Amino acid sequence: MSDPARETGTLLDVKYDANGLVPAIVQDHESGEILMMGWMNEGALKQTLETKLASFYSRSRQKFWIKGESSGNTQEVVEARIDCDQDTIILKVKSNGPCCHVGYNSCFYRKITGPESLETVDEKAYDPSEVYK
Amino acid sequence: MSDPARETGTLLDVKYDANGLVPAIVQDHESGEILMMGWMNEGALKQTLETKLASFYSRSRQKFWIKGESSGNTQEVVEARIDCDQDTIILKVKSNGPCCHVGYNSCFYRKITGPESLETVDEKAYDPSEVYK
Repeated sequence: MSDPARETGTLLDVKYDANGLVPAIVQDHESGEILMMGWMNEGALKQTLETKLASFYSRSRQKFWIKGESSGNTQEVVEARIDCDQDTIILKVKSNGPCCHVGYNSCFYRKITGPESLETVDEKAYDPSEVYK
Repeated sequence: MSDPARETGTLLDVKYDANGLVPAIVQDHESGEILMMGWMNEGALKQTLETKLASFYSRSRQKFWIKGESSGNTQEVVEARIDCDQDTIILKVKSNGPCCHVGYNSCFYRKITGPESLETVDEKAYDPSEVYK
């Protein structure tokens, strides 16, 4: 259903999903590399916009979290964008360290190479066992 | 919950949500600009990987769709990636025309400028009334 006010207006009117969440894509503000995608509830979005530190709502742990609160690898929000139907957000960030808990700069370090196969194409950025103790 | 096989293995094992869907971020393969985010079910992912044309499942219309089937502005998939927990996909694409039905190259043409405000920061790429008749 088309919704012109939401699609072209200048009022932030986020369309949260049935669980009250909206996906937020995190992108390096300089290189354009996509680092991760997280989920936000209204509180996490408010906090992110106020503090300029990327903050999310964990669906598995059912709690608010600030990216980097364990690792120290926080993400400073340089710019936030929203899409036409206001159900997806982009955070353009300056990262204080690598993003992915598995050890890569981006969570998207594997390429889909076939109907059931993946290939790791990025280089490891750090050893997670040294960070998450 | 950590799941090492899914997080670091080379087997594609997509973690679909409760509705059988996975979000797919569409990114320009050259500029790195994020163009849109769509949702895929297993069939749409399979079709996308086979045909190399970005294809999705519409949550509102509850049907399969190929990006550009109305407008002609298809997206050729140059590379597909998946994240550590295999619940988000990136399609790096070569676009045959602008992406957003409102008239912009990217759906993310508005910046969040305050707790309730947006600003259009991109230039219009085309007139939608000339394309969607």
